[in-house]
Amino acid sequence: MAAAFSPATPLRLRPYSTVRFLSSYPRYLTKQHHFFPPLLHRHPTARPRFFCSVISAALPSGERTKPELMEYQKVEMGSKVGEFRKKFKIVDIKGGAGADQGLGRVGQTLVVMGWVRTLRVQSSVTFIEVNDGSCLSNMQCVMTSEAEGYDQVESGLITTGASIWIQGTVVASQGSKQKVELKVEKIVVVGKSDPSYPIQKKRVSREYLRTKAHLRPRTNTFGAVARVRNALAYATHKFFQENGFVWISSPIITASDCEGAGEQFCVTTLIPSTSEAADSPVNAISKTKEGLIDWSQDFFGKPAFLTVSGQLNAETYATALSDVYTFGPTFRAENSNTSRHLAEFWMIEPELAFADLNDDMACATAYLQYVVRHILDTCKEDMDFFNTWIEKGIIDRLSAVAETDFVQLTYTDAVELLLRANKKFDFPVKWGCDLQSEHERYITEEAFGGCPVIIRDYPKACCPPSFLRSRHSICGRMMMGKLWQPWICWFLELLLIFALFMPNGICMTSRLMLYVVYLLESGKLKHIYVGELIGGSQREERLEYLEDRLDELKLDKENYWWYLDLRRYGSG
Amino acid sequence: MAAAFSPATPLRLRPYSTVRFLSSYPRYLTKQHHFFPPLLHRHPTARPRFFCSVISAALPSGERTKPELMEYQKVEMGSKVGEFRKKFKIVDIKGGAGADQGLGRVGQTLVVMGWVRTLRVQSSVTFIEVNDGSCLSNMQCVMTSEAEGYDQVESGLITTGASIWIQGTVVASQGSKQKVELKVEKIVVVGKSDPSYPIQKKRVSREYLRTKAHLRPRTNTFGAVARVRNALAYATHKFFQENGFVWISSPIITASDCEGAGEQFCVTTLIPSTSEAADSPVNAISKTKEGLIDWSQDFFGKPAFLTVSGQLNAETYATALSDVYTFGPTFRAENSNTSRHLAEFWMIEPELAFADLNDDMACATAYLQYVVRHILDTCKEDMDFFNTWIEKGIIDRLSAVAETDFVQLTYTDAVELLLRANKKFDFPVKWGCDLQSEHERYITEEAFGGCPVIIRDYPKACCPPSFLRSRHSICGRMMMGKLWQPWICWFLELLLIFALFMPNGICMTSRLMLYVVYLLESGKLKHIYVGELIGGSQREERLEYLEDRLDELKLDKENYWWYLDLRRYGSG
Repeated sequence: MAAAFSPATPLRLRPYSTVRFLSSYPRYLTKQHHFFPPLLHRHPTARPRFFCSVISAALPSGERTKPELMEYQKVEMGSKVGEFRKKFKIVDIKGGAGADQGLGRVGQTLVVMGWVRTLRVQSSVTFIEVNDGSCLSNMQCVMTSEAEGYDQVESGLITTGASIWIQGTVVASQGSKQKVELKVEKIVVVGKSDPSYPIQKKRVSREYLRTKAHLRPRTNTFGAVARVRNALAYATHKFFQENGFVWISSPIITASDCEGAGEQFCVTTLIPSTSEAADSPVNAISKTKEGLIDWSQDFFGKPAFLTVSGQLNAETYATALSDVYTFGPTFRAENSNTSRHLAEFWMIEPELAFADLNDDMACATAYLQYVVRHILDTCKEDMDFFNTWIEKGIIDRLSAVAETDFVQLTYTDAVELLLRANKKFDFPVKWGCDLQSEHERYITEEAFGGCPVIIRDYPKACCPPSFLRSRHSICGRMMMGKLWQPWICWFLELLLIFALFMPNGICMTSRLMLYVVYLLESGKLKHIYVGELIGGSQREERLEYLEDRLDELKLDKENYWWYLDLRRYGSG
Repeated sequence: MAAAFSPATPLRLRPYSTVRFLSSYPRYLTKQHHFFPPLLHRHPTARPRFFCSVISAALPSGERTKPELMEYQKVEMGSKVGEFRKKFKIVDIKGGAGADQGLGRVGQTLVVMGWVRTLRVQSSVTFIEVNDGSCLSNMQCVMTSEAEGYDQVESGLITTGASIWIQGTVVASQGSKQKVELKVEKIVVVGKSDPSYPIQKKRVSREYLRTKAHLRPRTNTFGAVARVRNALAYATHKFFQENGFVWISSPIITASDCEGAGEQFCVTTLIPSTSEAADSPVNAISKTKEGLIDWSQDFFGKPAFLTVSGQLNAETYATALSDVYTFGPTFRAENSNTSRHLAEFWMIEPELAFADLNDDMACATAYLQYVVRHILDTCKEDMDFFNTWIEKGIIDRLSAVAETDFVQLTYTDAVELLLRANKKFDFPVKWGCDLQSEHERYITEEAFGGCPVIIRDYPKACCPPSFLRSRHSICGRMMMGKLWQPWICWFLELLLIFALFMPNGICMTSRLMLYVVYLLESGKLKHIYVGELIGGSQREERLEYLEDRLDELKLDKENYWWYLDLRRYGSG
């Protein structure tokens, strides 16, 4: 049986062939003892001057050998590349919450690879909790001194944070926390963990974890966030693909400012790169005779910026392919060191041809319900964790979002509603004013009892000076102020906005902007109950109106010649 | 039956309910004549001062009315948002190549919306070719003077490029080019097209199309490229998701240079944004007493750059979640205005824990075969088009890639092979030299008869000064030089690399870099037969070796403290 599996990847299991495979696995292990564990061997090369001409094999004792030259393991010239098999993981055993939690696998011998969460040495047995990030659950591994490699426990090699390789048999667990556990037959430390490992079992604050951003993904919270975020991203693609949209990657570096407003980052090579940047004299920057920056010397020969939106580019595709969407990073250099803004975030911008505001709203709603349903279905265990530890009631609230009908009202009706409300607002309500958080809150929470609400038909006065859509206001974006370190921006893990509110204005041709933005404020996961999650608008498809609007906003029509062309030739 | 459909979106059809729906559709059309076509009406608001208080209804004559106020169409406060339905498109009729090409729909009455490709007026019938971008095929619409809206043909409104709405019945076609055509009952021009529309039927050069980048997606070639590119991107997500990888979006703005080499773009707000940038004096840039750039005044308080790779970030997740991948934009400010480099491109960077180079190679191969198979299966019509017009034999070649076993050989064997070859190379072969294109070409094309080849175990001398992986060489990236305009960077549509060659070095912990890059040179679609498509390496998981390597390369260990931590604590 084992012959069907390439020796090069002996630990890759097909999910449903585990038993067959492993029944013959130990033979292989014992035969090639010096390459144990097989996953970790390197193919040394014949010549000592090779950079990688040494191998490190973890010996059964768990101690790494000092690097040394080993016998050349020949890669036969022109031999086939091995078959790729899905890695067998803890989620495949425990199946997340809701499944049989592994009972169906009792009696199977299999291998788990992951990181030690905790180690408890008792008189007769040792318990090791192992997590491989495939799910929230650890695999509890139970070991007696009989197990091969037990000496690694005694010599203190198996510590929290260490990566290990364990082979064992699935048995029913006597503990109340899990249905099954792994009876260890063999254990190997793959990577030791220094005792200074900062993420020990005790609960640590998220403020503290921000200083350990590189290790933070190994915590329950950040692991769960990464898995849910992944599920949301994939569900986003699935939704649009299933509905016939074409994904467009709009350019990040751009010379145009499609918002009609500043707030862009400049992208330049006039300043030397990394190592020297800190000591760059201002005078070294190329200048013209007049003392201006000499853009002809820059990489693109003219000023270039990070995009604030891919919408204009998406429209060129929408007027050719009917329905498209972007899903990529976007940048705002907003002059606010508040905790409500992000300099960099991923945004979804669908663009629908032959559609109106009603189609926009229907699409936005369907999308949102689709992704929410998706995470409730596929991330049960992680969502249960959030529900218990991070945000009580979140599952109920999200379930409501997935099932409730979204309601719409016009801006005018919203204002009337607020004027009639028996409530004193800090910001007085007047037709034509922008709606404040307290207003949005009243509408969604009190007037419509927690229903997601779309407010439509905003007056022109509430529109920012953007010539092609209605509103620029985005909440839910957030920047970490001066504490924010660029390289860890990704680590600023952001959680779901659990309730939503979608101001929606009609100005121009159909288009949606879905800001699926997750929040983490000052290292503290925080949800906002009311906030703009999605903005959308119907695009102006009439050439003469667009031109008038550009004039009105004192924008140069010449700069938008190509955009106006989209209206001149078969506006969709 | 029609009652089940919201009047707001009467043209949205569920793919399998077309007939039922449309049988009652005309009633709706005639009843609400002034809102015809229903898709395009706007919801005017009660107050004239609203920006959007005017509506434009395309009348049956096809002429737009001048904007005028219309009766207020009330949006009931708190009414439900309509149901979103997948838009019915030409691909749903014709099904691309291979399907019944629409014969199963003969007799059905349905609606098509798209852009006029050509118009042929004959004495008794008029033929309109309509394309909606959902597939390469046009819908041939046949119209007599009986059809409602025929006067639009007579008044010259239906021109190439115009967007139109057509209702008709599917009939078997007498033409040889298609199995079915649409017998037009009603036609409405949604958006006129000025006679200056630059993309007429005659073939135009890709050089010319570069100057019309905003309209170019409406051509057969660029439409097909967009659809195939979309299919490749989605298949990429599908492959990794199905294999248990977690998608990670690594930060774009970064303070670290993970390549150990320059070539980064600086991101700054020290230079004013768009409108003023061109006239910025150098002296206005904040400087310290010593005349250096005062980074404390910059957005992030220190120099920041565009990322050249998300690999280091991905690794922090791989050592927590086991298998992850990035798929996002990456930037190189390489000082080369050649046509072989891109300043901005999307890159896939999978990161596998508990894996070695063999796993890397197996994963890369499986991935590539998966996506190739995916486009051959799902983009038949577009691939046939490429096969006929762009690149003869491409389907055969890609099919071979999908089915052929990939072979591997070591660098040393590759050198031996080249030395033994009865061939004179421009660059003499010597062990330790980097392989040149001519060498790669000989190996893949002659020595292995066109097989995809992975060359592994590169000597250290061939590695660039990067401390964690082997090779930096990337081909297939391309930049348009001074002609390149940032905002149209996305329009630099890039086609598949049809053959491949994957140098692969082992240096450090498992990791793949998959450069799935499409090429378009000087507006001319061009494939390269041999080139690096994917680079990969096994990461160095041993702390002491990494540290030695950093010293050797004179890199400051302090700057990599967090990366070294990943090795200190449970290296995967």
